[in-house]
Amino acid sequence: MNEQRVEKVLQKMEEMEIPQLLVTDPASIFYLTGHYEEPWERFWALYLEKNGNHKLVSNRLFTLPEVSGIDILWYEDGESGAGKLLPFLNRSKKLGVDGGMQARFLLELMKAQAASDYVDASEVMKQVRACKDAFEQQKMIEASLINDKAMERFKGLIHAGMTEQDMADRMLDIYKELGADDYSFAPLVGFGGNAANGHHSPDKTVLKEGDCVLFDVGCKKDGFCSDMTRTFFFGKADEECEKVYNTVLEAQLAAEAAIRPGVPLCEIDKVARDIITAAGYGPYFTHRLGHFIGYEVHEAGDVSGVSDIIAKPGMTFSIEPGIYLPGKVGVRIEDLVLVTEDGVKVLNHYPKELQIVEA
Amino acid sequence: MNEQRVEKVLQKMEEMEIPQLLVTDPASIFYLTGHYEEPWERFWALYLEKNGNHKLVSNRLFTLPEVSGIDILWYEDGESGAGKLLPFLNRSKKLGVDGGMQARFLLELMKAQAASDYVDASEVMKQVRACKDAFEQQKMIEASLINDKAMERFKGLIHAGMTEQDMADRMLDIYKELGADDYSFAPLVGFGGNAANGHHSPDKTVLKEGDCVLFDVGCKKDGFCSDMTRTFFFGKADEECEKVYNTVLEAQLAAEAAIRPGVPLCEIDKVARDIITAAGYGPYFTHRLGHFIGYEVHEAGDVSGVSDIIAKPGMTFSIEPGIYLPGKVGVRIEDLVLVTEDGVKVLNHYPKELQIVEA
Repeated sequence: MNEQRVEKVLQKMEEMEIPQLLVTDPASIFYLTGHYEEPWERFWALYLEKNGNHKLVSNRLFTLPEVSGIDILWYEDGESGAGKLLPFLNRSKKLGVDGGMQARFLLELMKAQAASDYVDASEVMKQVRACKDAFEQQKMIEASLINDKAMERFKGLIHAGMTEQDMADRMLDIYKELGADDYSFAPLVGFGGNAANGHHSPDKTVLKEGDCVLFDVGCKKDGFCSDMTRTFFFGKADEECEKVYNTVLEAQLAAEAAIRPGVPLCEIDKVARDIITAAGYGPYFTHRLGHFIGYEVHEAGDVSGVSDIIAKPGMTFSIEPGIYLPGKVGVRIEDLVLVTEDGVKVLNHYPKELQIVEA
Repeated sequence: MNEQRVEKVLQKMEEMEIPQLLVTDPASIFYLTGHYEEPWERFWALYLEKNGNHKLVSNRLFTLPEVSGIDILWYEDGESGAGKLLPFLNRSKKLGVDGGMQARFLLELMKAQAASDYVDASEVMKQVRACKDAFEQQKMIEASLINDKAMERFKGLIHAGMTEQDMADRMLDIYKELGADDYSFAPLVGFGGNAANGHHSPDKTVLKEGDCVLFDVGCKKDGFCSDMTRTFFFGKADEECEKVYNTVLEAQLAAEAAIRPGVPLCEIDKVARDIITAAGYGPYFTHRLGHFIGYEVHEAGDVSGVSDIIAKPGMTFSIEPGIYLPGKVGVRIEDLVLVTEDGVKVLNHYPKELQIVEA
């Protein structure tokens, strides 16, 4: 158990009047215990209680060599993991749960009248994890440096006749050569109109002249994630593509420039969105401006019009405006940023001006 | 929408007295609509209602070119996806939800008094999806044939001085050469004592003489999963390893032989477990005997001591007993099986007798 982090969580619980908290997000449990398990459909939870009566619930199938300083409640396949907690929960108090907890376990606890009320207490872990300490900041910087180098290598591979899949197939080896441990997420590679589909997976689409080439990619290094997007053009960029690109770039730069401690993240989103709207592309910027990142590529926390988060030193998130013209072109430019004591440090250094790769 | 499958779901809902059902598992939504989205933390749900008033709730970020025959309720980042459903839910009736639904969305619906009661209705989709139709069966057979061929290739790579990671790094290319599209899950490769850890990931452990070599591996082909485990020995197997291996093999064969329509799956688990217990290794067989599989590598449904499922034609699941002696050896042998009209078809054909790879 990382006592310092647990202490921060307990303080936050007190602030938010959550007397007992059930943490089920594997990354949050890793953050607090140093042990990562991918539980699939099994129950895996850390119960934190304001008086220090913490419990970790683990399936016998998981092996926990390094978790010390906490009682472990073991269960086996066929037993109820959530049930093991019942004798320890305070039935007369409310229970905070992770927003991502599986409904089956919540409904089971409710049926057993495990607590007086149940609330989505995702904010507790979200707020504690949002501000990275010096060690975490350093690791985030290193992962993004690898990503910068990888982007240059990826650009060098662009050539006529290649497919999106050809490109994606090469990426993991390049990351590993550069010292990364793995992807932080499966790479998104989109040519032409495919880049306008936010959830397109690399397929057999062949690159042709005039296509945009979008890479939304990241690696993991020592458990920390990078995530960057660049959009190139192959052979040429027509007038509209250029306008789209430069609008996104202007929005991206303006948003980054607006970041400093104390600024509401919804205002950062507005800075970028206003520029895109003014250029006439408002309806084609279909997503939030950014997301938090750290141990996980998407951590809790939004940079969006409805975010109520205020920028604080240590926060790391993405700034990634985009414009997507269905069937024609998609442009997104994304950096990771770290809020500092007096401004912002952009973690990616790969150039952002429009680049046309020779056909 | 696949009308035939939706009809099966509606029938099952009626049987189970679920007037309205919220399906949130992306694989189940794919099964019914033909469209796959990985929604991350976003809301993505198919609402099914006994009178046919179905709705699909989708973020604007998702693109749904192929879903016809259903109303789509769109929302944007910053809006509540679950909230879009409120006007359509029947507040005076109970609502069934997927067990894997995120608690945040369930708590939001509860707060809005969206229904009279909330139940884990995972059984509906679980039972409908458990029995594969002829097309699905054929695809499962094909994916497992590739896995058989891949296992022979993996065995051929075993050599002195290699690490688990060396082996794992080669596997995806081999699967692709054999016609697979991807892994069905990240391969588990365990040498020696690492094989006794059910959740060990391939690392830099170097192979040494006398080690067991456990491969728990699978590929995806046309969206369908294979999953097989074989355990080899490198150079030699000591007496205890041999006893462990042959006990697991006996249990595996006996379990497969016991499968036919009408048999409760808890009895199949017992057949294997009794053999392992009689040999003195009961406490070292720490997991269920098997899991359902299809579009997903772990589908809902257990082959375990507490399973209440009765074998029916079309069901596909794994049979994978194991014995794990901590720090020393882990042996697991796993095939996929398909329940037929009068017995069982084993989908894997790779040999199971003890194989010692020359050191």
